[in-house]
Amino acid sequence: MNRAVFFAAAALILAGFSDAPGTQAVLDASTPADWRPLDPANTLYMELPSGRVVIELAPDFAPKSVENIKTLVSAHYFDGLAITRSQENYVVQWGDPHAEDEAQRRSLGDAATTIPAEFERQAAGLAFTPIPGPDGYADEVGYSKGFAAARENGKAWLTHCYASLGVGRGDTADSGNGAELYVVIGHAPRNLDRNITLAGRVIEGMEHLSTLARGTGPLGFYEKPEQMTPITSIRLGSELPEAERAHVEVLRTDTETFRKYVDARAHRSRDGWYLVDQNFVDLCNVRVPTRETSRP
Amino acid sequence: MNRAVFFAAAALILAGFSDAPGTQAVLDASTPADWRPLDPANTLYMELPSGRVVIELAPDFAPKSVENIKTLVSAHYFDGLAITRSQENYVVQWGDPHAEDEAQRRSLGDAATTIPAEFERQAAGLAFTPIPGPDGYADEVGYSKGFAAARENGKAWLTHCYASLGVGRGDTADSGNGAELYVVIGHAPRNLDRNITLAGRVIEGMEHLSTLARGTGPLGFYEKPEQMTPITSIRLGSELPEAERAHVEVLRTDTETFRKYVDARAHRSRDGWYLVDQNFVDLCNVRVPTRETSRP
Repeated sequence: MNRAVFFAAAALILAGFSDAPGTQAVLDASTPADWRPLDPANTLYMELPSGRVVIELAPDFAPKSVENIKTLVSAHYFDGLAITRSQENYVVQWGDPHAEDEAQRRSLGDAATTIPAEFERQAAGLAFTPIPGPDGYADEVGYSKGFAAARENGKAWLTHCYASLGVGRGDTADSGNGAELYVVIGHAPRNLDRNITLAGRVIEGMEHLSTLARGTGPLGFYEKPEQMTPITSIRLGSELPEAERAHVEVLRTDTETFRKYVDARAHRSRDGWYLVDQNFVDLCNVRVPTRETSRP
Repeated sequence: MNRAVFFAAAALILAGFSDAPGTQAVLDASTPADWRPLDPANTLYMELPSGRVVIELAPDFAPKSVENIKTLVSAHYFDGLAITRSQENYVVQWGDPHAEDEAQRRSLGDAATTIPAEFERQAAGLAFTPIPGPDGYADEVGYSKGFAAARENGKAWLTHCYASLGVGRGDTADSGNGAELYVVIGHAPRNLDRNITLAGRVIEGMEHLSTLARGTGPLGFYEKPEQMTPITSIRLGSELPEAERAHVEVLRTDTETFRKYVDARAHRSRDGWYLVDQNFVDLCNVRVPTRETSRP
């Protein structure tokens, strides 16, 4: 009896499907121009005791929030703060554990305390590669420079997928400022789309967030300071020496290679093991490929 | 500045929406008949060093696999075996670390070594409460006795949602036997639907699986035995004293209360905080409610 490893034999079976290649074959046939590096000016590096989380910011969708986050990061606002929340199948959140205590909380410095909602934007002028539907939450879904997104009635917005980065807010639409950030660690909570500002996504190191012990308080907040994970630092890529940045490239989502990749994700039987093709892949299951590059 | 806790104020705002209640109001208005206990004969209790995972089996969809799993559990097959795999945003898997070694692997005893695929069944005769679409993977989706499921062309099948329990298999459709089981710990991998047997879902204790350190080998397998989490035991509920069973009830999915709950999940602005209603909830985001009951 072989160990019941599902989808073990993918690579072996690919050869027979040259007209419509499987996922790995699509990537193997890509050219250097299909890939892009991370922009250091829009990449965050969060250092946790367990390792590093690399985050790509999305200024096309949330310019003011991204700017405010960068202001906070440049002032080293997050250093020594903590991950304050880990809610099962939902989100991890970080910020100032004393945010509700006027006397103890850390100053936001030059950063704004409120930011007008950036829940959606005009679709016009935005890079957007649609993928085939249906999608129950929007007329059209697809990818914009690597970010899962949606369009409807002339508007576009980022969608809540696994690893999406959001800007926590209170009851009013403008109450988020980037000092409290969250990342999705479960099934895509698309109900949040257009209800809160999304500002990026985690590129590397999701496991340092997703495996954190869940908080036992309401909404997964930790009940005691010692349960929280301290944030060693958050830095902008452009503030780090090049050798310390992530050496990773992202597949460009405006390429024919990406279109073929989405198609292969919708037809997994090309990869072998699979018996039934879904003839479909939902937005959050596309998972834009990344690859390691050699150090400069 | 208030801490940016998203959806904090839900309960306060409910009062104004009596015609179309929010999620909590629907549950508050439920009657005892809307809830059911777990069937001890179809409930597994997996004891891990960190705590207990409670699993509901689905004999309506996978009768032979469920029977084989019960045979293995009754023989205490899993006691002392291990969680061998934890793959980020995908699955956790457990079984015999020596499954590939004929000399060292544990005997399956009276259990079958292969089981014909139970990837789908006849839809006729199956309890099924549809929920509004669209769904990209099936003509119709809904719930069957608490399990997320789909129907198309006279067939029905369980769907891969967060916390779904599956029967690992090799390359052939009948190669799964229940000695290797997996649980979804990420965004619903619906591409697996109808390609592998699903046999249940986790009811309680998901955090003991989802927070495990990810394996660093291919497919998230652990590379060293000491990285694996040992399984203290797996028992069938009917083998445990009643006082040791989970005291939990599940909302019946064939009730008007459940229909209203799904509707409330599609219209979250009734809960306050939300500004935009999606007028939709996808299958895996419904999340069938459970509640604690007092001990007998």
